[in-house]
Amino acid sequence: MRMVDLIEKKRDGYALTKEEIEFIIQEYTKDKIPDYQMSAFLMTVFYEDMTDEEITALTLAMADSGEKIDLSSIEGIKVDKHSTGGVGDTTTLVLAPLVASVGVPVAKMSGRGLGYTGGTLDKLESIPGFKIELSDRAFIDEVNKNKVAVIGQSGDLAPADKKLYSLRDVTATVDSIPLIASSIMSKKIAAGADAIVLDVTTGEGAFMKNLEDARRLSHTMVRIGELAKRKTMAVISDMSQPLGKAIGNGLEVVEAIETLQGEGPNDLLEMCYVLGSQMLVLGEKAETLEEARSLLEEAVSSGAAFETFKNMIKNQGGDESICSQPEKLLTAPFKIELPAKKAGVVTQLVANEIGIAAMMLGAGRQTKEETIDYGVGLKLHKKVGEQVEKGESLVTIYSNTEQIEPIKEKLYQNIQIGEAADKPILIHEIITE
Amino acid sequence: MRMVDLIEKKRDGYALTKEEIEFIIQEYTKDKIPDYQMSAFLMTVFYEDMTDEEITALTLAMADSGEKIDLSSIEGIKVDKHSTGGVGDTTTLVLAPLVASVGVPVAKMSGRGLGYTGGTLDKLESIPGFKIELSDRAFIDEVNKNKVAVIGQSGDLAPADKKLYSLRDVTATVDSIPLIASSIMSKKIAAGADAIVLDVTTGEGAFMKNLEDARRLSHTMVRIGELAKRKTMAVISDMSQPLGKAIGNGLEVVEAIETLQGEGPNDLLEMCYVLGSQMLVLGEKAETLEEARSLLEEAVSSGAAFETFKNMIKNQGGDESICSQPEKLLTAPFKIELPAKKAGVVTQLVANEIGIAAMMLGAGRQTKEETIDYGVGLKLHKKVGEQVEKGESLVTIYSNTEQIEPIKEKLYQNIQIGEAADKPILIHEIITE
Repeated sequence: MRMVDLIEKKRDGYALTKEEIEFIIQEYTKDKIPDYQMSAFLMTVFYEDMTDEEITALTLAMADSGEKIDLSSIEGIKVDKHSTGGVGDTTTLVLAPLVASVGVPVAKMSGRGLGYTGGTLDKLESIPGFKIELSDRAFIDEVNKNKVAVIGQSGDLAPADKKLYSLRDVTATVDSIPLIASSIMSKKIAAGADAIVLDVTTGEGAFMKNLEDARRLSHTMVRIGELAKRKTMAVISDMSQPLGKAIGNGLEVVEAIETLQGEGPNDLLEMCYVLGSQMLVLGEKAETLEEARSLLEEAVSSGAAFETFKNMIKNQGGDESICSQPEKLLTAPFKIELPAKKAGVVTQLVANEIGIAAMMLGAGRQTKEETIDYGVGLKLHKKVGEQVEKGESLVTIYSNTEQIEPIKEKLYQNIQIGEAADKPILIHEIITE
Repeated sequence: MRMVDLIEKKRDGYALTKEEIEFIIQEYTKDKIPDYQMSAFLMTVFYEDMTDEEITALTLAMADSGEKIDLSSIEGIKVDKHSTGGVGDTTTLVLAPLVASVGVPVAKMSGRGLGYTGGTLDKLESIPGFKIELSDRAFIDEVNKNKVAVIGQSGDLAPADKKLYSLRDVTATVDSIPLIASSIMSKKIAAGADAIVLDVTTGEGAFMKNLEDARRLSHTMVRIGELAKRKTMAVISDMSQPLGKAIGNGLEVVEAIETLQGEGPNDLLEMCYVLGSQMLVLGEKAETLEEARSLLEEAVSSGAAFETFKNMIKNQGGDESICSQPEKLLTAPFKIELPAKKAGVVTQLVANEIGIAAMMLGAGRQTKEETIDYGVGLKLHKKVGEQVEKGESLVTIYSNTEQIEPIKEKLYQNIQIGEAADKPILIHEIITE
């Protein structure tokens, strides 16, 4: 088999066989296929798309390209959850202990954020002492004991995906549904999931800007899951405005604590109930979504979910006192209010721009080398559709400096106040096939 | 400017500016843009095509990427000729001295063949002593003295094209009209041509398999020439069967000698008159094609063209006695006839397959490292549309061995004899805009 012939075959509109795709991924991982051939191939995929069979072969070949986590010694169906990302997305912090408290084991490997704000790992690391590196053995033991552990992704998980992603980033081949879908699914499969719940965000703050693309990506991933024998479903959720009210690492941990106690923002709690219900059904802890939701609501009201979160922090070396003393996390020296310039209804909160404002404060990183300031961020007081009086605070800005005029300016530009606006639909669609 | 943004711009269907294309070629030539970005870019060009302005900018940027030959000290309009290649294409050997003998200066830089048979340089090197390496100074002096010199292409002529071509070859981006056109034209422009006559071959033995592609390539190159201020025209010629009757290096030199004396195959002579007439008009040695043709016919019948050829051989160090003693070139120990298995009319001579048969004898090379045997080849006795008796020889095979069953087999398979066939049209179209 010669790579040039496979590029030509794809270029000319033919589907590649499983063997051909395995050849490409295996040889590329071993540096036997050079980047210049791979990038030409990726561009043909951008133009020609892939069949479900091709995407599944690509996903499995990437999952097989390195270490695969064996979670078989954890009892029960291991349900993983993945979000395509957003602004102020605190879901995992809430969902992992919530679902675990009902008996679904959550053995979660998470990534760092390379966006407007940190990823789940960064958020957890804002908790003093929290360890995100555990050996495979300790990780599994932890899940067997407490039903939940969240750790950093192993370096050798799907190395082909890592190598491909770096190449796509510099060759304008990122925006390709088959490549996005296989990248996500290969990591979930290599991480040992039996079943997968996908949160596909859509809107200004998301990677998929419109519903149509989100739908295509969702269907593609669900079909990969099916062909790869992993029960998979996707929830298409709104990311036109930030999810919840906190944006920033420590702030989001505090928000998670509130939410686990039933006192968090409605949209975040609802999102966790929707995703969690799906996880309980896939994990065979409930027959129906209704039954699942009752179990989750009970876990919140009884305090079981919050208890599981506290145990997770303690077991992973973190300072659980932050649960009762959130001020330990909110370390920014300045809390600056952003008063509304007029009365009315919030009509728009442009998610990605508000994310950038948080990043400007130091809550996120643009390059891998940058460090994150856990204490800074934004706390929104009004979401789209809510009334605001003139002079009432729209946002509390947690900052290390008082010199934040450009940030205030950006926030004013991206928080529109008008006559009237409906609350956005939170869940657009649920895709199961 | 970032290459990734330019790839994305092209990918999304926008035309690049002259400055952007110059940036790409300049930085790539300096190894500042890596192959993996360039190959992704080339694939976008394959899919998106290029505007005439983009192709011209690309051509000129490649022509400017290295040494440019200054032919200004040669008197007159320097008309270059380029063929997109074929089987048994002896045109340059005839045309260069023919046109020169009428007063159009021919300062020709030629390439080696990497195909079924050798290129013009290989054919000339079959003449004992012939030197294809001359300094720029000696080259120009030679043209001023004898009106013609044919030498090897300078190593640093359009290095960007050389680098790009190697990359295209292994990334399935060869078959792209804008890339083919700019590759050809950049070398002609860097080689100092004032005007360019293009022989765009079409048919089984050519790179452009069909007339439509040949037409697109021709128009594209003519428009590049116009925008680059080089008078350019293209002749679309037939390469469904080999041109002339000789295939092989020494054999083709002998055929050129015969043709220059008016005794060569009709198709080759006609081809040279058509291309030569265009060159005379572009070179302003004739007002009309008719006048030009008369001048060329006279140069053949008077012996002036042949004399110029002999002088060229002598001046470039070659043994001119081969002109009267062609047996010095036909050194293959075995001359084997291929008798027709039945009587009839030749209906098909599949050019590329017959070329491969010649290559199997040793007349061409598949890799740069292979050496060519100048003495071997094929002499066709019958062309498409000609009568043949059973047992009459179709081809004389000049070989180093008598063990040539596979070659005979290939020839029989690709020389069809049937009831009737028209002679193929030699010149399909002449493209001047």
